[in-house]
Amino acid sequence: MTRSQLIEQIKIKKNFLCVGLDPDIEKIPKHILANEDDPIYEFNKRIIDATADHCVSFKPNTAFYEAYGLLGIASLEKTLKYIKQNYPEHFLIADAKRGDIGNTSTMYAKAFFQRLNCDAITVAPYMGSDSVKPFLNYENKWAIVLGLTSNEGSADFQQQKINGKELYLNVIETCASWGTKDNMMFVVGATKAEMLSQIRQIVPEHFLLVPGVGAQGGSLSEVCKHGLIKDIGLLVNSSRGIIYASGGKDFAEKAAEEAKKMANEMKQFIK
Amino acid sequence: MTRSQLIEQIKIKKNFLCVGLDPDIEKIPKHILANEDDPIYEFNKRIIDATADHCVSFKPNTAFYEAYGLLGIASLEKTLKYIKQNYPEHFLIADAKRGDIGNTSTMYAKAFFQRLNCDAITVAPYMGSDSVKPFLNYENKWAIVLGLTSNEGSADFQQQKINGKELYLNVIETCASWGTKDNMMFVVGATKAEMLSQIRQIVPEHFLLVPGVGAQGGSLSEVCKHGLIKDIGLLVNSSRGIIYASGGKDFAEKAAEEAKKMANEMKQFIK
Repeated sequence: MTRSQLIEQIKIKKNFLCVGLDPDIEKIPKHILANEDDPIYEFNKRIIDATADHCVSFKPNTAFYEAYGLLGIASLEKTLKYIKQNYPEHFLIADAKRGDIGNTSTMYAKAFFQRLNCDAITVAPYMGSDSVKPFLNYENKWAIVLGLTSNEGSADFQQQKINGKELYLNVIETCASWGTKDNMMFVVGATKAEMLSQIRQIVPEHFLLVPGVGAQGGSLSEVCKHGLIKDIGLLVNSSRGIIYASGGKDFAEKAAEEAKKMANEMKQFIK
Repeated sequence: MTRSQLIEQIKIKKNFLCVGLDPDIEKIPKHILANEDDPIYEFNKRIIDATADHCVSFKPNTAFYEAYGLLGIASLEKTLKYIKQNYPEHFLIADAKRGDIGNTSTMYAKAFFQRLNCDAITVAPYMGSDSVKPFLNYENKWAIVLGLTSNEGSADFQQQKINGKELYLNVIETCASWGTKDNMMFVVGATKAEMLSQIRQIVPEHFLLVPGVGAQGGSLSEVCKHGLIKDIGLLVNSSRGIIYASGGKDFAEKAAEEAKKMANEMKQFIK
């Protein structure tokens, strides 16, 4: 998907919500677990159908599928296929946080872009240029590089200073020089919204994928205040807050309600 | 596997070789591709049987399996099982370079340690403490944290200085404070062997997993000169140099020869 196609979808739907698909057997409603052959896929399918009208993007986190082995990977592949077939206008992100030496990153790019047909993959930057660049060789595909994450541990290294400038700013600046606003985005946690201003000085036009609004405590209006640009430039993710809004038979309706609520909050920020 | 069990194996076999299992369809011998239902597994099995006597560890890189989707993951799982069943004294590393927020890293730890029964997993440190610590909660299991990698891109961030000290030294020092020499190792590329001296000052007793000897140009004697300790403290990996030593019908014998050659070179360093 191209940058202008993504912006168009955001303007049509008047939101920039990404729904994170992180299925956890311990949280999936009991009636789904009891009655379905592939409960993860079935859970996802109903969440996707219920929330698709209220979001522009879906983001399965691969860890939640890998934890269940071959069956989990099968559920992931079926989920990705279901989204591509039924909601091709949704921006599909594999949240895999991959990154390895050149030839290995090339294998990952092939897997997620060619075989699984995702629009984007999240990438860990620690190993540098040859670990990131292989993800930039596919037309209309995206590397979403970890910049400043929303977890506690982001203080350990990301916020340490190199030549007076935090590592995450160095990472964003350097990685941005390898790609363009058309094939690269950055992960920037919402729990540190004020840091978005500094990031916007470095990458004034790049899209940012923002986790941490909702369950993790980040504020949407703060994120918009510091991160919004003319072309929107934001994808705000919510996972647990939406998909586990209810653990009962009404889980899909409650997920839709939560997604709709977030989408409505976003409307005011889109001209 | 415990630290003392690993050291014991090294002393019995008189080598500290890890064979990297990175199967690539374009390099697997044609007769295997033509005649086997699961050529990746069959290739691995023969490489494992041929090299097991000359090494103490196996390390499949998960990217090379994920690239082939469900079939690739099935080959990986069969390979891991085959090693555990037939060579339980070999230290089994999943080279997955995972790392995510706490609850997600917990899912990965569960997948690789509990379900797949690996001894160790490689971990990317960029996201900090909560991304690393979940891998330290399993008895006799190991997190192998990326310190200084052997690729070109390691210069981009790892070798940048924070308060006068390179990021990789900061990473190794900080991560070492979260674990012990009994549940944590570090990846340190052989192409920068002289940097091992500095690393040894910070972690005098930790095991180091060293890629980059052989195909990538690192020197074994340099690595030993700067990295060897009383308890050995090194696992030196070779992948391509061993498993693709020949592309013909003799691939397993040639792999054995290469592994044996490396093992013999190591012998002189073990008292």
